[in-house]
Amino acid sequence: MSFTQVELDYLASQKLGRLATEQPGGTLQVSPVGFTHNAELGTIDIGGFNMATSRKYRNVVANGKVAFVVDDIASVQPWRVRCLEIRGTAEGIDGPDGALIRVRPRRIISFGLGETDVEPHLLTPNKRDVATSN
Amino acid sequence: MSFTQVELDYLASQKLGRLATEQPGGTLQVSPVGFTHNAELGTIDIGGFNMATSRKYRNVVANGKVAFVVDDIASVQPWRVRCLEIRGTAEGIDGPDGALIRVRPRRIISFGLGETDVEPHLLTPNKRDVATSN
Repeated sequence: MSFTQVELDYLASQKLGRLATEQPGGTLQVSPVGFTHNAELGTIDIGGFNMATSRKYRNVVANGKVAFVVDDIASVQPWRVRCLEIRGTAEGIDGPDGALIRVRPRRIISFGLGETDVEPHLLTPNKRDVATSN
Repeated sequence: MSFTQVELDYLASQKLGRLATEQPGGTLQVSPVGFTHNAELGTIDIGGFNMATSRKYRNVVANGKVAFVVDDIASVQPWRVRCLEIRGTAEGIDGPDGALIRVRPRRIISFGLGETDVEPHLLTPNKRDVATSN
């Protein structure tokens, strides 16, 4: 399993993530997306209205490059942002229930999850490469 | 002025954005960042703890490629996400008050801002290229 339980709980608690992709010409783009963790495959699956015609979908089909982040502000005073970032590859899947982007993690970086008692500047990220099963 | 008043009001209302950058080897990354709109320059300025040593700062210094998005969930039922995405170039500035990433918009895409009475699937994005003054 790529994700820790704390990370899975965090993913389940958040409604929105942000997906970065790259256009064939090199321009980066980033946009908010709904998502689900696919427990069977260990992927992040991203659907949405008109996905198949979206630029981000076409970007993924073209080059498979993505980064994805889920974050929130746990506290403003002190300033405390939690996040889970996933770098990896993605594929566009156009199935009977609509198109989706499937993100396979290669590197996971989480920060501040389940550590609300630690002074923010003392937090260290949990960074690691993860194996891809297929 | 690159931004409309509705977009400026939206930027001022949100505490967190997400910045996508690209590592020299081609890997994308995306992370939550605090930001300010620099009204004098028409840029988005992004500071933060240990910015100068961060990977995103080094990515920007290396290739200047960025995308930046601010978004929130205006309503869950019906599902209504608002967002303002900026694609452009950025530079890393290491000044006496600390390092920052300065984002110069080339293309702005806003969606759902100030249109809370419109049925979500009828919303259309406001997309346009913007001139850079320098």
